[in-house]
Amino acid sequence: MPIAFAPPLVTILDQTTLPAAERYRELRSLDDVEDAVRTLAIRGAPLLGVMGAGALAIAAETLGTAGSTLRASAHRIGAIRPTAVELRTGAEKALAHALAINEGERAAALWRFAEAYLARRREEDRLLGQAGADLLAPGAAVLTHCNTGALATGGIGTALGVIRVAWERGSLARCYATETRPLLQGARLTAWELRRLGIPATLVPDTAAASLIASGAVQAVITGADRIATNGDSANKVGTYGLAAVAARHAVPFYIAAPRTTIDPACPSGAAIPIEFRDGREVGGWGEVRWAPDGLEAYNPAFDVTPAGLITAIITEAGVARPPYSRSLADLLEMP
Amino acid sequence: MPIAFAPPLVTILDQTTLPAAERYRELRSLDDVEDAVRTLAIRGAPLLGVMGAGALAIAAETLGTAGSTLRASAHRIGAIRPTAVELRTGAEKALAHALAINEGERAAALWRFAEAYLARRREEDRLLGQAGADLLAPGAAVLTHCNTGALATGGIGTALGVIRVAWERGSLARCYATETRPLLQGARLTAWELRRLGIPATLVPDTAAASLIASGAVQAVITGADRIATNGDSANKVGTYGLAAVAARHAVPFYIAAPRTTIDPACPSGAAIPIEFRDGREVGGWGEVRWAPDGLEAYNPAFDVTPAGLITAIITEAGVARPPYSRSLADLLEMP
Repeated sequence: MPIAFAPPLVTILDQTTLPAAERYRELRSLDDVEDAVRTLAIRGAPLLGVMGAGALAIAAETLGTAGSTLRASAHRIGAIRPTAVELRTGAEKALAHALAINEGERAAALWRFAEAYLARRREEDRLLGQAGADLLAPGAAVLTHCNTGALATGGIGTALGVIRVAWERGSLARCYATETRPLLQGARLTAWELRRLGIPATLVPDTAAASLIASGAVQAVITGADRIATNGDSANKVGTYGLAAVAARHAVPFYIAAPRTTIDPACPSGAAIPIEFRDGREVGGWGEVRWAPDGLEAYNPAFDVTPAGLITAIITEAGVARPPYSRSLADLLEMP
Repeated sequence: MPIAFAPPLVTILDQTTLPAAERYRELRSLDDVEDAVRTLAIRGAPLLGVMGAGALAIAAETLGTAGSTLRASAHRIGAIRPTAVELRTGAEKALAHALAINEGERAAALWRFAEAYLARRREEDRLLGQAGADLLAPGAAVLTHCNTGALATGGIGTALGVIRVAWERGSLARCYATETRPLLQGARLTAWELRRLGIPATLVPDTAAASLIASGAVQAVITGADRIATNGDSANKVGTYGLAAVAARHAVPFYIAAPRTTIDPACPSGAAIPIEFRDGREVGGWGEVRWAPDGLEAYNPAFDVTPAGLITAIITEAGVARPPYSRSLADLLEMP
């Protein structure tokens, strides 16, 4: 469980020490939340949405439930990681919920809201996982990238949720997970989750994914997405585009699995998606260990964009979109 | 200098401790050679050719110069890394040279042969570098993979030799180097060589190479090769195939730069090239540092095969081969 609510505190699994140690942290104040989010002790866009809602409950508990106090707290929560839009969304939805209620009942209501937010995340992940698993042939081996499991969403995950449902149905042979340089979310987090789930797992250097696909060993590639344009172009963890390009060459289906909220109605194509560049020191080493000469310039984009033409289908909790995406994604967005 | 001959021993620069420390190792026996080759203290196909010749001189020195002894030693040398055909070639050429000489003169002749082998490597690298640099447009930025410089050949290098000659001519803007997981030869060795040469360099996580190519930042991708089939299919460091596939999508020229001896007349296509798999523990960590859960299965091929159709040209010291390779490579092999 990456997050749990026990008023007046929120317990999170500290993702920075995985897989070496399973440590839990108790968050009792907005300072605690800020530190946990900044250090990536809690991460993953959907899970940060849950954290945003829970953080406002902590604020109500510690700072009070006056409207102005809650508004200021929600603003502060949303500003911790400006690019992590779901953190702000979670806090703002919780704020709107609380402001519609008598002040004396707000704290309890915010805890219930955070619980409901997490419960909904679980339901939607399960729906997404089932929709995705329906697409996989029995006995399929699947390649995934980065971490999109329980550690990223609080539910069963998105791409990894699809893999988990297929495994539960007895129709998955194996999951191949890339290391996912430079932050190694695949080697650290996805590998840890796969082991806990008992799913046969193989770790793959990012360099070896192309020849793995060429060898015929995988029947599908499934990744998450951070933002999906209305034409289907999808931004996801850097490295996704290369996997999709090679999968297409070998007619291996490439699927994106993401909550419907990832589709951005204001974004017409991948060209409109800004790409965040991270600290170059993440390249050429890991933590305190350096393998490159010091001070070398590095190219370190957090995301890349996979063009819609390489994507076989986009799997959401509301259904599966197929090309042409301009129509199918619009249909998904219009569903209740 | 990655290798030097000082009978009765061979001195090599230990590539496993670069760039942190420049340490030299003295090889005095075939056991020493075997350990150095297996641990990649010495690596790079052309340099392994030089090592193969030097190893037979060590064998003559330590085990004797009888024909049967030298034959058995050459066989043992060639078997240390079966995919690294140049190691065997170097040993076999030295063997043929020695067997044509009186037994009493063989040891000295083998040392001279190894020196000449290295000198020839230097001349040929320079010719290859000039032929390759002729193909690059002025002001080009180039992406390379793994290490193919002086550390890999003993001369100026193959792919990195092309980059070096272009830089010396003032026609290179920048070299992008992949990290090259899992052994990080790009981040460690290529980055170290580029810095020593004063070439503007940018380090790229393997995951980010595809989006770098898509961004239009590089005008060519150049890598080495470990074995080239007569139809042009080329085996090289794992990760090469993915780069070639993405380069082709963006009409960025993809060049192989390798000594003519890399072309294997007995190998009709990539399907006939055996791929060496390495210890899975190289994946999921670096040295003593582990980031993946212990004991996880890993997929760790040393090489992959790039199909001829993705290769714009194959650059050798004897000239540049272009498609159709079945003809152009045969022509190159027939040259004196």
